[in-house]
Amino acid sequence: MSQRPPVNFCLRCGTRLELRFWFGQERPCCPVCGYIHFDDPKVAAAVFITAESRVLLIQRGVDPERGKWALPAGYVDGDEDPCQTAVREALEETGLQVRVTGLLDVFHGTHRPGASILIVYAAEVIGGELAPADDAEAAAWFGPDALPELAFESTHRVVGDWARSLRGN
Amino acid sequence: MSQRPPVNFCLRCGTRLELRFWFGQERPCCPVCGYIHFDDPKVAAAVFITAESRVLLIQRGVDPERGKWALPAGYVDGDEDPCQTAVREALEETGLQVRVTGLLDVFHGTHRPGASILIVYAAEVIGGELAPADDAEAAAWFGPDALPELAFESTHRVVGDWARSLRGN
Repeated sequence: MSQRPPVNFCLRCGTRLELRFWFGQERPCCPVCGYIHFDDPKVAAAVFITAESRVLLIQRGVDPERGKWALPAGYVDGDEDPCQTAVREALEETGLQVRVTGLLDVFHGTHRPGASILIVYAAEVIGGELAPADDAEAAAWFGPDALPELAFESTHRVVGDWARSLRGN
Repeated sequence: MSQRPPVNFCLRCGTRLELRFWFGQERPCCPVCGYIHFDDPKVAAAVFITAESRVLLIQRGVDPERGKWALPAGYVDGDEDPCQTAVREALEETGLQVRVTGLLDVFHGTHRPGASILIVYAAEVIGGELAPADDAEAAAWFGPDALPELAFESTHRVVGDWARSLRGN
């Protein structure tokens, strides 16, 4: 889903693209219609949901890191508000309706496949029933001393900071 | 630079694309090589630089909002760390070397042309000489009671909050 395809042809008119120097670097450009291809970041939004000193994690049902646990997350579509992405992915993967309470962090990674930018929001549950679906094999609440095997550096950072703050170290 | 072109042809093999339902919505797909076109967000990073109760703004030399003042900012390239984008744009537009000190906010907008996601970092100057260049007509420091005409809702929010906090209201 997030692998970068080779950029050979103009997506507007179908002509073979040529590399030209534009806006600070070489970019594929169309000699016929003038289209310039900008390589945009892949952006994902994740949601850090806590209640009663437990964090809600999902077990990944797809690669990469299949079987490990992570924050509910998914790709931000075109003009979608990343805040809405976070709410939508929480519902899709856990069955729970959540409300975003704040911005937590922005991570950058170059691991492929995967997003290059991850925006993490804090959220609280406002409805629904816990029922994993979509890319999630399972969804469950974990206390700071009984965490499962975590996927991704960003999950380690966010959940690790939270667990340490609860343990007071 | 950020207008979305119509998506008609496969950028991998040049075949005319067909709309098919994939990952929750209709997306342009290649019937020959299997390429699926995902519409990614355009992401920009901005930098909020303050010193001695003044904020550094640039006067926009390009549309949209040409002539108005904004935070130094620019588009995040493919795999670029948005933090690096902020530092790079500050240097390109103001001549100053800055160091990011924290994440300030993430904004979403659907105004075209323009980024759909804007990541704003706080930063401090660590070197260089003030010299506007690139997309900036001018660059200058402003106190909270002598702000110029501001461009964009995000600039109003960030600079407005800062000015109010300094004025104590």
